[in-house]
Amino acid sequence: MCQLLGMNCNVPTDIVFSFEGFHRRGGLTDHHADGWGIAFFEERGCRLFLDYLPSISSPIAELVRAYPIKSRNVIAHIRKATQGTVNLANTHPFRRELWGQYWIFAHNGNLDSLPSLQGSRFQPVGDTDSEQAFCWLLDALAKRFDVAPTYDALHTALKSLTAELADRGSFNFLLSNGEVLFARCSTDLHYIIRRAPFSTAHLADADVSVDFSSVTTPDDRVAVIATQPLTDNETWTRMDSGQLLMFVDGEPVA
Amino acid sequence: MCQLLGMNCNVPTDIVFSFEGFHRRGGLTDHHADGWGIAFFEERGCRLFLDYLPSISSPIAELVRAYPIKSRNVIAHIRKATQGTVNLANTHPFRRELWGQYWIFAHNGNLDSLPSLQGSRFQPVGDTDSEQAFCWLLDALAKRFDVAPTYDALHTALKSLTAELADRGSFNFLLSNGEVLFARCSTDLHYIIRRAPFSTAHLADADVSVDFSSVTTPDDRVAVIATQPLTDNETWTRMDSGQLLMFVDGEPVA
Repeated sequence: MCQLLGMNCNVPTDIVFSFEGFHRRGGLTDHHADGWGIAFFEERGCRLFLDYLPSISSPIAELVRAYPIKSRNVIAHIRKATQGTVNLANTHPFRRELWGQYWIFAHNGNLDSLPSLQGSRFQPVGDTDSEQAFCWLLDALAKRFDVAPTYDALHTALKSLTAELADRGSFNFLLSNGEVLFARCSTDLHYIIRRAPFSTAHLADADVSVDFSSVTTPDDRVAVIATQPLTDNETWTRMDSGQLLMFVDGEPVA
Repeated sequence: MCQLLGMNCNVPTDIVFSFEGFHRRGGLTDHHADGWGIAFFEERGCRLFLDYLPSISSPIAELVRAYPIKSRNVIAHIRKATQGTVNLANTHPFRRELWGQYWIFAHNGNLDSLPSLQGSRFQPVGDTDSEQAFCWLLDALAKRFDVAPTYDALHTALKSLTAELADRGSFNFLLSNGEVLFARCSTDLHYIIRRAPFSTAHLADADVSVDFSSVTTPDDRVAVIATQPLTDNETWTRMDSGQLLMFVDGEPVA
């Protein structure tokens, strides 16, 4: 299985602190060493860094640690291969364009079978169940909506579509278009909302702390979503199995 | 206008030498300072590095210089904005998936008008003429071919499609799916084929030389395509206006 990390904020925020702990799970504090990737949305644009090396020893991970890119939506993934060989085409997150928006998807889990992609306008490049699921979801959305729908309509559509796939295995995923971030829990997904009054957080994977009150303004709101909590002195909320949350401006909406 | 750099090889090759000269044109030896990007294909996968900083001062360009990624097909672009503001969504190269293949596109030129993208399955995320042209080309290809055609058929189709756009302005571009690389010249595009016996090349933009005989095998063949020649002691071939070459395994095919 893999590890997911997501961030959704109301102002552009760097993810350096969370990534500091997260990237150690790729070969140091955990054994997910079959590549990794991270996508940063910057307005409508998107930067996607991928490497098939373990994140703990990847030169690209070093760049991400040293170059604090500010973003309102980030999705990262550390891979422990279950289906598909270790290569770049199988490295999450995956990206496609729909309705003139980039969509980023990363999956933790394993799907035993998938609906046919015959005739789908989105086709997998690699050979993972994850990319197939992403292509199927986007094709189904493209068929339902000619143009980008309201986020409420999108949330409702994704609930019914993911339910069709969830019977086929474990399906934890993060999905974002740079405005909203969907987090779907099958087995393991936790989140925390950081807002004023900010306090000091301490990583679970390294003896590193940050005092968020010194790097934020009182209006900032940041949601961090991860397979397992990244800090050991804060209270993370465990998502329910089957839950699909939509995060907007740093908090989940009903 | 912008600067293009492409590489197509018969074996995975690093582009560090060419990039050493090329990236200086983004703010040092030339004034193309409105962002830059580079895409490396690795088998079916693709790494795309983008930055809206000038390539001469970009931390991501430093990574690309220091981390020699071996690839059979590379496309890079340094931007001098003509249409669209300086931001990540407008930074070349652009990427889409078609027929289960990633397609990478970068454009040097300016198109005054473009056919409608109403109903197109590919829609621009940013607001450049270049990304619109790419979306139009891919949509037209998707309509002609349900699955990936032969490369000869693709070459023929692209010749007629690009002719439709070329009347609308200057349209130099590079396009690749990781197997073949198309180079289309409107005003400025040059290429060189390096093969045995290899010799020493000297950059035009920096006092840097490389003896290719020490870093190649006799069977290696590498085509480098650039807006302006990157070396000052080799003979580059200037492409004709209107020419669309298809490079396969390091050389243009008829």
